[in-house]
Amino acid sequence: MAITLAELAEHVGAKLSGGHDTTITGVATLQSAGSGDISFLANSQYRKYLADTKATAVLLSEQDSEHCPVHALVCRNPYLAYAQTAALLYPEVSGSSGCHDTAVIADDSVVDKTASIGAHCVIESGVTIGANVTIGAGCVIGRDVTISANSQLKPNVTIYHGAKLGQRCIMHSGVVIGADGFGIAPAEGAWIKVPQIGSVVIGDDVEIGANTTIDRGALENTVIGNGVKLDNQIQIAHNVRIGDHTVIAACAGISGSVTIGRHCMIAGGVGVAGHLEIADGVTVTGMSMVTKSIREAGVYSSGWGAQSQASWHRQVAALRRLPKFMQKFRLDKS
Amino acid sequence: MAITLAELAEHVGAKLSGGHDTTITGVATLQSAGSGDISFLANSQYRKYLADTKATAVLLSEQDSEHCPVHALVCRNPYLAYAQTAALLYPEVSGSSGCHDTAVIADDSVVDKTASIGAHCVIESGVTIGANVTIGAGCVIGRDVTISANSQLKPNVTIYHGAKLGQRCIMHSGVVIGADGFGIAPAEGAWIKVPQIGSVVIGDDVEIGANTTIDRGALENTVIGNGVKLDNQIQIAHNVRIGDHTVIAACAGISGSVTIGRHCMIAGGVGVAGHLEIADGVTVTGMSMVTKSIREAGVYSSGWGAQSQASWHRQVAALRRLPKFMQKFRLDKS
Amino acid sequence: MAITLAELAEHVGAKLSGGHDTTITGVATLQSAGSGDISFLANSQYRKYLADTKATAVLLSEQDSEHCPVHALVCRNPYLAYAQTAALLYPEVSGSSGCHDTAVIADDSVVDKTASIGAHCVIESGVTIGANVTIGAGCVIGRDVTISANSQLKPNVTIYHGAKLGQRCIMHSGVVIGADGFGIAPAEGAWIKVPQIGSVVIGDDVEIGANTTIDRGALENTVIGNGVKLDNQIQIAHNVRIGDHTVIAACAGISGSVTIGRHCMIAGGVGVAGHLEIADGVTVTGMSMVTKSIREAGVYSSGWGAQSQASWHRQVAALRRLPKFMQKFRLDKS
Repeated sequence: MAITLAELAEHVGAKLSGGHDTTITGVATLQSAGSGDISFLANSQYRKYLADTKATAVLLSEQDSEHCPVHALVCRNPYLAYAQTAALLYPEVSGSSGCHDTAVIADDSVVDKTASIGAHCVIESGVTIGANVTIGAGCVIGRDVTISANSQLKPNVTIYHGAKLGQRCIMHSGVVIGADGFGIAPAEGAWIKVPQIGSVVIGDDVEIGANTTIDRGALENTVIGNGVKLDNQIQIAHNVRIGDHTVIAACAGISGSVTIGRHCMIAGGVGVAGHLEIADGVTVTGMSMVTKSIREAGVYSSGWGAQSQASWHRQVAALRRLPKFMQKFRLDKS
Repeated sequence: MAITLAELAEHVGAKLSGGHDTTITGVATLQSAGSGDISFLANSQYRKYLADTKATAVLLSEQDSEHCPVHALVCRNPYLAYAQTAALLYPEVSGSSGCHDTAVIADDSVVDKTASIGAHCVIESGVTIGANVTIGAGCVIGRDVTISANSQLKPNVTIYHGAKLGQRCIMHSGVVIGADGFGIAPAEGAWIKVPQIGSVVIGDDVEIGANTTIDRGALENTVIGNGVKLDNQIQIAHNVRIGDHTVIAACAGISGSVTIGRHCMIAGGVGVAGHLEIADGVTVTGMSMVTKSIREAGVYSSGWGAQSQASWHRQVAALRRLPKFMQKFRLDKS
Repeated sequence: MAITLAELAEHVGAKLSGGHDTTITGVATLQSAGSGDISFLANSQYRKYLADTKATAVLLSEQDSEHCPVHALVCRNPYLAYAQTAALLYPEVSGSSGCHDTAVIADDSVVDKTASIGAHCVIESGVTIGANVTIGAGCVIGRDVTISANSQLKPNVTIYHGAKLGQRCIMHSGVVIGADGFGIAPAEGAWIKVPQIGSVVIGDDVEIGANTTIDRGALENTVIGNGVKLDNQIQIAHNVRIGDHTVIAACAGISGSVTIGRHCMIAGGVGVAGHLEIADGVTVTGMSMVTKSIREAGVYSSGWGAQSQASWHRQVAALRRLPKFMQKFRLDKS
């Protein structure tokens, strides 16, 4: 794949300073780029690498462009322009369409003729697979599932019965959609299973990372909005609702019946207790535990940063004595 | 599926106030129920929805029954009665029994003729599969595994050699039972693998959530008691022993050789350090870290609730200064 | 499998006190060992079981040997000697080599004739599989992957295109190598995917636990050093670099572009924020959150140990008041 700088500038909406006919064939970091590569500067901590870059061209902002020693493509959002450039130069390798001979596909499923079903897949009864959908090898798609056009399932994804996936979704390997939620009722010292009869509805343009799990609803559905991006190893419990364009980083766990608003950012390792509501535009920082509903946009935290163990142990010991210390202090004053 | 209120009342042990011949065909929440639905009131925060419910009948407690605008089924444990009702009205869709043509089944395995083995399963040598067991598509069952009667494996479950599963167990997709525990011995700056030669023994009525992992024992077995319920994405390390009817919520991690008693409740994201003992009847709240054995029933915690980042940072900074502050305070007083 | 004590002593480099011709057939703990078993004493908390052991022989240190009631094999590192003994007495059961009939193997892949490819595996185009490699049932190996000699993939492992695995690696079930990292660029309120065009390079002698995920690099590679041992359910994000012989316990999460040194020990549930550097020889204790680079070897912590909920709540409340309390204290003093 090769493209001229002029074509690229038009594609990403950048202003080009010379080199219109120069050809680009790859992307690379400022430090490792060579001839034919385009690089980008989107984070000020990498500005120091600009002067010595061997890239043929660089995507960068107006303010950085005067220091650019090579062809500059000036744009408002260099990282976005980089994403668009990389998508252009490194198109997905797509297998041929059609169903692999070893796939087991129920007669009454509807698979679009442009879809691709990988080896050893199982497509159960009543499934609908849209145009240009790619199902990787070893996926199991339960009965009555719908997977809309242009979505991709990587190998070894499991979708339980009845789930609906929107268009242009990407599900990475090991994802499990629609397993039973953790519904149990106490009964004389034991626990009785509560049937999980809701389903999962996933919007358009949702990407879900490897080994993430989204449980089906208990009575109503678990709902993931449009444009939601979930990283790896996340747990989304039954009846959670996640608003459009919210992103959640790896290893977070969202308990049952939580509602998260639109445009939220939930960092890695965060836990959210059950039945809470989180407003639009909320950011929760790493490894925090949300125990109350959050009604206003803003940044919320409860994670502790690591320090030397000796220093940390002194603080832990001090906090343990603090309640009595405070009490004594006030008694002394009275 | 349809049932009269009289039949249902008898099935769940409820007292019915009228409408004996009225037919019920579904369950729904108080807010969304319509004609033909039965709903339930088990949590006081939903009482406000009772007056306006369009349900045909409601499962509720004696004390709530006087406010019920529709047919009431009065019972001691409405949530349990709901679970029984839902199980009755929404029976599992079971595939036909028998082994799918694409399953690879060792000649010397013993598969009960009422069992169902899904497409692309692999059943290795010496496996025993009991009556009415369902093995979903893509499961791999290692040599000498026993799966007892009426258990269900959802698709893409992996069971390593030698593990034993009790009756009526449910293993959700992505579960891995019997992988090697994390046993390594230091040897001149490197780490040597310690063979994991124990196995995993799982009792009856155990449900294990999607992508949860239970490692095999190092020398003796990892043991999961009867009626234990594990949510998704949990890690159970080698030689852990979990007592009967204990429940563990998602994303918890139990380190090697931990013994947890009966009837414990371990919340989401909890970590338990290695070789500890936790008594019967212990509750550990969300995201706590258990670093010492717990000898008495009760509730234990160490999780921090999130708050505004500004407020949180002030507390973190204050704690950092606390050891010196305390020291100075006492010097001042002396 | 049986071996004389003399042979075993030579194999593990131990000094034997009598019983040279005595035969050993198994390993067991001091408490459960019987005739024909060898046990070991590597942890002082088990010394109390030595006097009454029914083992035929015990691997132990010089200082413990005088109290040994049975044949003693004295060695410097009894746990290592135990690991070597168990590996000798319990050799891995290896299937026959060759490709199972149901495996789908691209014509242009290169599979060594001594390798074993399990049932329902998929080996895509351009893959290279080395000598004595074992690929468990249901694995999917993407195009252009290299798996070097003597490595083992347990069932249901997924390797995305282009990843390289060294020699003698072990990947447990549910592992996903090379899924896309969490790369997204903001674009007018939505998120645009940033193509992940790097790969994953894994060294020799790396073991990776069940359901652990290692993402491919965004532009350059994610790199796992030689001898690294990763437990279950770990998340390694894009462009992480982990130095040789570092070990990470279960449920840890390492954010993007983190560099971890050699010989580090990262405990369970630890989180490391993005773009940090951790020096060689660093230990991070359980459930800590690393938010700054760590430049010196040592032990680092930020986890809180659980205690009774009442006591914990008093401390949480005290910390909440601490900033004002400190402020008041100083005003009072002025």
